[in-house]
Amino acid sequence: MSSQDESAQRLAQNLRRATGDANPALTSFVIPALLRGIGRTATALRAAHSVEKAGSDNVFGDAQLNVDVLAERFFRDEVAACPAIVAASSEEDPVEQQKQQSTTPGDNDNAETYAVAFDPLDGSSIIAPNWSVGSILGIWAGRSALHQNPSRQIAAVLGVYGPRTTVVIAVRVPGREDSAVCLEVGVSDSGSYEIIRDLTLKNTETKTRYFAPANLRAASEDARYMALVTQYITERYTLRYSGGLVPDVVHALVKGHGVYLSPVTAGSKAKLRRAFELLPVALVVECAGGLAIDPVTGRRILETPLKDLDETAGLVCGTATEVEKVKATLLG
Amino acid sequence: MSSQDESAQRLAQNLRRATGDANPALTSFVIPALLRGIGRTATALRAAHSVEKAGSDNVFGDAQLNVDVLAERFFRDEVAACPAIVAASSEEDPVEQQKQQSTTPGDNDNAETYAVAFDPLDGSSIIAPNWSVGSILGIWAGRSALHQNPSRQIAAVLGVYGPRTTVVIAVRVPGREDSAVCLEVGVSDSGSYEIIRDLTLKNTETKTRYFAPANLRAASEDARYMALVTQYITERYTLRYSGGLVPDVVHALVKGHGVYLSPVTAGSKAKLRRAFELLPVALVVECAGGLAIDPVTGRRILETPLKDLDETAGLVCGTATEVEKVKATLLG
Repeated sequence: MSSQDESAQRLAQNLRRATGDANPALTSFVIPALLRGIGRTATALRAAHSVEKAGSDNVFGDAQLNVDVLAERFFRDEVAACPAIVAASSEEDPVEQQKQQSTTPGDNDNAETYAVAFDPLDGSSIIAPNWSVGSILGIWAGRSALHQNPSRQIAAVLGVYGPRTTVVIAVRVPGREDSAVCLEVGVSDSGSYEIIRDLTLKNTETKTRYFAPANLRAASEDARYMALVTQYITERYTLRYSGGLVPDVVHALVKGHGVYLSPVTAGSKAKLRRAFELLPVALVVECAGGLAIDPVTGRRILETPLKDLDETAGLVCGTATEVEKVKATLLG
Repeated sequence: MSSQDESAQRLAQNLRRATGDANPALTSFVIPALLRGIGRTATALRAAHSVEKAGSDNVFGDAQLNVDVLAERFFRDEVAACPAIVAASSEEDPVEQQKQQSTTPGDNDNAETYAVAFDPLDGSSIIAPNWSVGSILGIWAGRSALHQNPSRQIAAVLGVYGPRTTVVIAVRVPGREDSAVCLEVGVSDSGSYEIIRDLTLKNTETKTRYFAPANLRAASEDARYMALVTQYITERYTLRYSGGLVPDVVHALVKGHGVYLSPVTAGSKAKLRRAFELLPVALVVECAGGLAIDPVTGRRILETPLKDLDETAGLVCGTATEVEKVKATLLG
């Protein structure tokens, strides 16, 4: 067995802490397929010195970069090659496509099947200056991400493309919530995996406290957001805000504490996609012991089923005590 | 000739726009040696999944990480192997060490000689979460960086370790100031270079305006800094602040505009080293057509000779009009 195979097997075993024996295809095939997509995207980014506009806009109106197109293709390839994944949708092509089913009737009925909803490359505005960017992938038990109880999104994967390539893998299975896992894993150039650590967002007092205020322009028209920012400064919190959702959330996860906030106002609309960004990120944060809420309703992001792939919202996430503090200020 | 050699030759020719024929060793040997150090550091970072404390503190009290130690070693190796570099000092070992001279009297008198002052790996606090970090290197004509007219720092190099490896190279030679160069270059895994573009900080009106407020805790005790931050928010500037000096400054350079500010107050002391951080960064910013000033005196960083390798100060840099605006607010 090659060292890549061995490390993949070790990783799959580790993830079974969360699933028990119930989801072997998830840990042995689905997650590894998405990790291969992340590895291929990392390789493409490394050579992408001339980040050019591809000329096509995606349906949300973002200018697509070449590397976005490549990342989309890599994940679609991996999805196509993985029999357990039966449906997929992405920010670049936000229609859930069902894969062709087996022609033998009943063949797929008892099989483990999954739907994947993903943002192949998040953070296009910070690719040119060579800042860390990421991929976001949510994995749903069954044949669709739509009109499901959000607890059926049983796993999520974040890829972080920085000086090295790392991934965050979260798994939480209904009935085994206490065994939820949130792991940081290093991906080597050769495609082998190194388990770095379990990620947890602690409520303990820390000397340094981090805040990441997204959509800060909204504070110009929302006195409560402005008051919150002023309060962070006065209380000497440390600012870390790259403007990439993945690196910003992963910063808190790796440091073990911190808060990310992206409020919504009349003039600064909600921009984060629930299907491709918010639901996977919320699962990761909750599996690490943190909270992820909608800043308008104050409810957990994972409380509301996904009815449409176009849904957007704001986000407050991180250490539970910090999120509660934001909620109290923003929602009174 | 290999493709690496060809790309290195193309780069050297390009840099001679700034030097004319006067500094062949700078463009053909000194800068390439430092770029090799950056390439080696990038490779080490890519594999550094378990970023551990090495257990030793450097003289400034920062906890040294393994990768810091490696980067220091790579640059020292390259310096040792480059005859035109006769002295070097670094943040990890801030004593200027003169290399052994040729034993033939007079042999070195007419030779092109350089002293290098560098920070091998800046941004250790954001290495663990896999955010982009950098190297900073200043190149001084002559045998020392100390007690010189700062115009004798004729070149500076920034390495950016992100999803890919990029470098910013600035060259400005006394008497040829109008031909100053600030180039962005991509470094491939094989060690060849791809010239990406000339970097310029423009004063033109832009739809998006960026600000990077470092040392933000200082705003809690400085009403002028707080007023400035409030003003940026009210005027709907876009926040981008990673906390790494190199990625933060390079963000403005690549976007073509932006302002970075790290004020100093009684409770938030100046932390940036003039020798290893401020002087090289200031040269890069000025070669791109921007301004870099000391927030306490309002004077250009490059106006004051370096008397001691331990000197520290604050920094405001970026687009000239933005820097003047900060100066007017902070210094009245």
